[in-house]
Amino acid sequence: MRNTHDACHIAVPAKDLDEAVEFYVFGLGAKLARRYDDRVTFDFFGDQLVCHLSDDVPEEAVMYPRHFGVSFAAAEDFDRLLRLVEHRKLRVLAGPALRFEGTAEQHRTIALADPSNNVIEFKNYDDPRLQF
Amino acid sequence: MRNTHDACHIAVPAKDLDEAVEFYVFGLGAKLARRYDDRVTFDFFGDQLVCHLSDDVPEEAVMYPRHFGVSFAAAEDFDRLLRLVEHRKLRVLAGPALRFEGTAEQHRTIALADPSNNVIEFKNYDDPRLQF
Amino acid sequence: MRNTHDACHIAVPAKDLDEAVEFYVFGLGAKLARRYDDRVTFDFFGDQLVCHLSDDVPEEAVMYPRHFGVSFAAAEDFDRLLRLVEHRKLRVLAGPALRFEGTAEQHRTIALADPSNNVIEFKNYDDPRLQF
Amino acid sequence: MRNTHDACHIAVPAKDLDEAVEFYVFGLGAKLARRYDDRVTFDFFGDQLVCHLSDDVPEEAVMYPRHFGVSFAAAEDFDRLLRLVEHRKLRVLAGPALRFEGTAEQHRTIALADPSNNVIEFKNYDDPRLQF
Amino acid sequence: MRNTHDACHIAVPAKDLDEAVEFYVFGLGAKLARRYDDRVTFDFFGDQLVCHLSDDVPEEAVMYPRHFGVSFAAAEDFDRLLRLVEHRKLRVLAGPALRFEGTAEQHRTIALADPSNNVIEFKNYDDPRLQF
Amino acid sequence: MRNTHDACHIAVPAKDLDEAVEFYVFGLGAKLARRYDDRVTFDFFGDQLVCHLSDDVPEEAVMYPRHFGVSFAAAEDFDRLLRLVEHRKLRVLAGPALRFEGTAEQHRTIALADPSNNVIEFKNYDDPRLQF
Amino acid sequence: MRNTHDACHIAVPAKDLDEAVEFYVFGLGAKLARRYDDRVTFDFFGDQLVCHLSDDVPEEAVMYPRHFGVSFAAAEDFDRLLRLVEHRKLRVLAGPALRFEGTAEQHRTIALADPSNNVIEFKNYDDPRLQF
Amino acid sequence: MRNTHDACHIAVPAKDLDEAVEFYVFGLGAKLARRYDDRVTFDFFGDQLVCHLSDDVPEEAVMYPRHFGVSFAAAEDFDRLLRLVEHRKLRVLAGPALRFEGTAEQHRTIALADPSNNVIEFKNYDDPRLQF
Repeated sequence: MRNTHDACHIAVPAKDLDEAVEFYVFGLGAKLARRYDDRVTFDFFGDQLVCHLSDDVPEEAVMYPRHFGVSFAAAEDFDRLLRLVEHRKLRVLAGPALRFEGTAEQHRTIALADPSNNVIEFKNYDDPRLQF
Repeated sequence: MRNTHDACHIAVPAKDLDEAVEFYVFGLGAKLARRYDDRVTFDFFGDQLVCHLSDDVPEEAVMYPRHFGVSFAAAEDFDRLLRLVEHRKLRVLAGPALRFEGTAEQHRTIALADPSNNVIEFKNYDDPRLQF
Repeated sequence: MRNTHDACHIAVPAKDLDEAVEFYVFGLGAKLARRYDDRVTFDFFGDQLVCHLSDDVPEEAVMYPRHFGVSFAAAEDFDRLLRLVEHRKLRVLAGPALRFEGTAEQHRTIALADPSNNVIEFKNYDDPRLQF
Repeated sequence: MRNTHDACHIAVPAKDLDEAVEFYVFGLGAKLARRYDDRVTFDFFGDQLVCHLSDDVPEEAVMYPRHFGVSFAAAEDFDRLLRLVEHRKLRVLAGPALRFEGTAEQHRTIALADPSNNVIEFKNYDDPRLQF
Repeated sequence: MRNTHDACHIAVPAKDLDEAVEFYVFGLGAKLARRYDDRVTFDFFGDQLVCHLSDDVPEEAVMYPRHFGVSFAAAEDFDRLLRLVEHRKLRVLAGPALRFEGTAEQHRTIALADPSNNVIEFKNYDDPRLQF
Repeated sequence: MRNTHDACHIAVPAKDLDEAVEFYVFGLGAKLARRYDDRVTFDFFGDQLVCHLSDDVPEEAVMYPRHFGVSFAAAEDFDRLLRLVEHRKLRVLAGPALRFEGTAEQHRTIALADPSNNVIEFKNYDDPRLQF
Repeated sequence: MRNTHDACHIAVPAKDLDEAVEFYVFGLGAKLARRYDDRVTFDFFGDQLVCHLSDDVPEEAVMYPRHFGVSFAAAEDFDRLLRLVEHRKLRVLAGPALRFEGTAEQHRTIALADPSNNVIEFKNYDDPRLQF
Repeated sequence: MRNTHDACHIAVPAKDLDEAVEFYVFGLGAKLARRYDDRVTFDFFGDQLVCHLSDDVPEEAVMYPRHFGVSFAAAEDFDRLLRLVEHRKLRVLAGPALRFEGTAEQHRTIALADPSNNVIEFKNYDDPRLQF
């Protein structure tokens, strides 16, 4: 388990900060924490996501090797994310699908793409102990 | 605050998985969770880091726009990280330094680079409420 | 998530402190913490509610723009509140009803009115992450 | 103590939603959660604050009987709030001051006013058990 | 809610300390913490129970006005206690029964008696918020 | 450690319920939860205290064998209780004193008496692990 | 309950450290924390397991008197362990079986053996309070 | 971090169960949970220790490769253990000493021996993150 007070910190490029706010806050339900000329910071599922204004964004969204997201311990939280994606018509890159099926580390997964082609993956392991 | 059961998930490229294990486990003190032919997974400060075997790694370590790490709520935890870096002679990219000095969001920061030039940043805000 | 030790603080007018105690403690099940000549303080679902003796109370209870209450993370806690309202025949201003139906932020809501026409709203979001 | 999953819910009027975002997010460090034509919602120190667009705002900021805020259990958290107020030059209505001095319920307090003259009070009791 | 680190402290008379150990540890499943010539201390459901050697014990077990026990938040924990009482044939003074039936504070209750006629009550409220 | 959701339950006699409210709420800082003709219930430091109207009260307050109270894990919480006792001039039966001095179970203690001669003891062990 | 920050520490012999890593990490899903010439340390279900390189290992795996493991509070966590054992074909020494059947301390149990014949037992009590 | 509800489980031999109770409860301050003809179970710092009656005990206490104990996250908890050892004159096998001095995994350690020559080690790492 992790503690409640530290925050994981993730920084990714964004070609347009308004787009980033639109996607992360009004799409994914993250919360806008701070905004500067060159970056915007979010409370992303309890962790800190920073979108840095940059032209260095991928031409298309590619699953590997770079992505980030959340591994939910509870199946219902993954279900809620799926409903949010559907309600808000977020751009799905892959899934929902079952991975490592029939093994101890079996988990559900869905991958989204933000407007700058950063990939966000949400997962739910049958056995949360194996989510690492 | 975030909850204790979910895990933040971060995936980055690694040109060599043994090197990744050496750096993250025996260097940074992350814990090796699983290893496959094409990836290795770590318990990285309570969250899930996955290094995917890939040639798509940066030629040099560059701070922006992509990096990840931990924002420590307690000053002592940042100090402990600094001591670890020193004891184990980890490769420092920048800092330790004070950022946003004299503002409410003032924080200490240090950036490291892993063997595949992924950048890892550790931070400690004077006011942990502003770490988002 | 919020932490367990701080308390949210809400102050509202009450035209009669005995009435306020009757409503909040023996009605809503809040707990009486302190009482002074000009105010009474309650442990209101874990937060601090203060009723200040004042003639400046609304002539009738109006839902918007001022109200306060609790957003329950668990559906059962909202159900329990509904049963309490029914058992103790508390004055219902609106609901129970479903709001933002068919969206990610769908939630159940009920609004009560205290004897000084302060409005208290209780809610339960399908996705507690969106309760902010 | 309160639990970590429920949220206290506070709704107040705002004559201008942009002003509200400016004050609460870029001033007080609350986080923007959602925005609609007629309201904006914030993660305010872990609880839900909603500003409803309304002309029904006070002509001037008056301390009693209506206000809301946070009672910090830790003295350092109150100190951090004071530093934030100073760094960001937020509009102070009263204090910082010591109230109920020399009694068991002695506490420090500071009151701010938002652009719509809603009053926000922050407190720190010497004995957090008496913060109710 | 209460915190996890403090302990509630209850002291009662016992005419025989061996009997007390037999009842509380091998009967109720409390844990023996310390023993002196004139007292024995238990970890009683997470709180501290002390049995003081004394002749001042009631001639018979009487429910009111003095007793102590546990109010379980979860129905299953009350069920488990009932099974323990049955399996270990503990001496039941009253119940299990439903009290305040049809009100918001409805709860299940069972009362046991220890060898020195101290009364122990276990309860489970439909609405744990009303267990105070 | 104990969990946060269950409550320890203590029932004692009170010859006068108003006196009990005066002492426990306005004296000790407990919170009034419910009141009936024959009893009053308190949130007493997070646990449930019930005062049952009864003539069966001790003629004088005697420390042993019956009392109840709180064992604080943190020294500051015990200090705060001492200050409350002083500020509010509560009736002290014994102490503050050091007990089991020079042993592993050394602790500070103070005993108060309520208007019905029930004895309340507050303690603070040097080693909170030994508070059982 | 135990606290979240301390770790239980268990040290056992291993005739081969690679084998130990293979079994504990890639079998049981423990996490590799550190490795030295003469020992390897694991995060074993949140506690610290150290395998010391040693020839002093049992010739065969024997259940009593020496073993270690985890007592799961939740039935689902025990079920997950059973599935892991099956999926990964871990060496089962005994069980799964029901012990102390028909008593308050009834629990499910399964015992595994590591490559150095250390015995690991996993349990799940019907009443987690009795897991001590 | 580990969770609060599961328990680590450790089983060791004891040549005499009364001796084991004397050492673990009245010496180390563990709590006696249950006792059978052939075993006694303890709440050992929040985890479950079982002493099985057995003649298979070491002739002398030897530090490696088998021992168990606690790694304290807080320095004060280690200090408290040292004071307990001194006050109660427990049998010290080695230390207190500093191990891995001048490295990131530096920690204090002390080893005790129980009456059956089982070795118990207590530790405190400068950086609790490295206690695994």
